[in-house]
Amino acid sequence: MADEAPFQFLHYEVIQYIYKSAENGETENGRNIAKLENLGFRVGQGLMERLTKDTARFKDELDIMKFVCKDFWTCVFKKQIDNLRTNHQGIYVLQDNKFRLLSQLSAGKQYLEHAPKYLAFTCGLVRGALSNLGVKSIVTAEVSIMPACKFQIMIQKM
Amino acid sequence: MADEAPFQFLHYEVIQYIYKSAENGETENGRNIAKLENLGFRVGQGLMERLTKDTARFKDELDIMKFVCKDFWTCVFKKQIDNLRTNHQGIYVLQDNKFRLLSQLSAGKQYLEHAPKYLAFTCGLVRGALSNLGVKSIVTAEVSIMPACKFQIMIQKM
Repeated sequence: MADEAPFQFLHYEVIQYIYKSAENGETENGRNIAKLENLGFRVGQGLMERLTKDTARFKDELDIMKFVCKDFWTCVFKKQIDNLRTNHQGIYVLQDNKFRLLSQLSAGKQYLEHAPKYLAFTCGLVRGALSNLGVKSIVTAEVSIMPACKFQIMIQKM
Repeated sequence: MADEAPFQFLHYEVIQYIYKSAENGETENGRNIAKLENLGFRVGQGLMERLTKDTARFKDELDIMKFVCKDFWTCVFKKQIDNLRTNHQGIYVLQDNKFRLLSQLSAGKQYLEHAPKYLAFTCGLVRGALSNLGVKSIVTAEVSIMPACKFQIMIQKM
C-alpha cells in the first residue's frame, strides 16, 4: 500500500493546487480539468518512453493495449486493469474495479460529481502513453459506482 | 527503478507546470520555490500520517529523525539516507549520495544553478513529515556535486 502512496498524495495535492490557484482568477472547471489532463499526458509520455526502453516491438494495436493494461497500469497503480474490451474498430474499454486515485473518496454515489477531477490526470496519462507509441487517441472516463472506473479509448486513425 | 518513476515524472512535470504558469504573470523565482515547498509540505504531512499509523510512539527527536532517514525516505525515494549527523542541539544533516529527484539532471557542476527548484518540494516534504509528528522545523538543501545532496534540518524549539 505504501508503495504508490507518494504518487497518490502528490496527485491529490496537485489537484488541490490547481483548483486553489484558479480561485484567484479563472473560474472554469473545464480549464482545470484540461490542465490536469495535460499534466497527465506529459507524465504518460515520459513513463511509456522509459517502460518500453527494452521491450520488443509491438505486434499491433491490441498488443499495445495489453501492455497498457498490464505493465503500464502496474507501474503506476500497482495493479492490473481488471477487464479489457474492444469492438475491434478502434474502441477499447479498460475497467479498473478498484481505481487507486478514487480510493480516497468514499465509495458509493455520494461524491460522484467530484469524480471528474480525480480522473482527468489519468485520462491524459493514458493518452500520453499511447501517443508515445505513435497511437493518437481520445480518452474519457466514466464512474458508476466508486471506486470502480472505466476508461474509454477511441483510436484516431491518421 | 520503475517503482518510483510515476512519482519522479509527476514531480518533474509539476515543476514545469508551476514555472510555466508563472511566466504569464509573476516572475519571481522565490515564489515558485515557495509553491513547490508548500506542495511538498502537504504531501509530507499526509504521507507521515499514513506511515506512522501503526508504529510505536517515538522515544525522542533522534528517534524521529531515524524514522525519516529510513522508513520515510525509502517510501518516497526507494533508498535510505546515506548519512545522518547531528550537533545534538537541534540541527540535523541528512545526506543522500544519490538523490533521485536530481538524477534526471547531468552529474557535475554544469546545472548546479537549477538545483534549487528540484529540491524545494523535498524540503517541504521533510518539514511536513516532521510537522505531522509535532516537530516544527526549517529545512534547507545544499548540493555540491550532483546527484549528492544534503538536507539541513533546524528544529524550532517551542
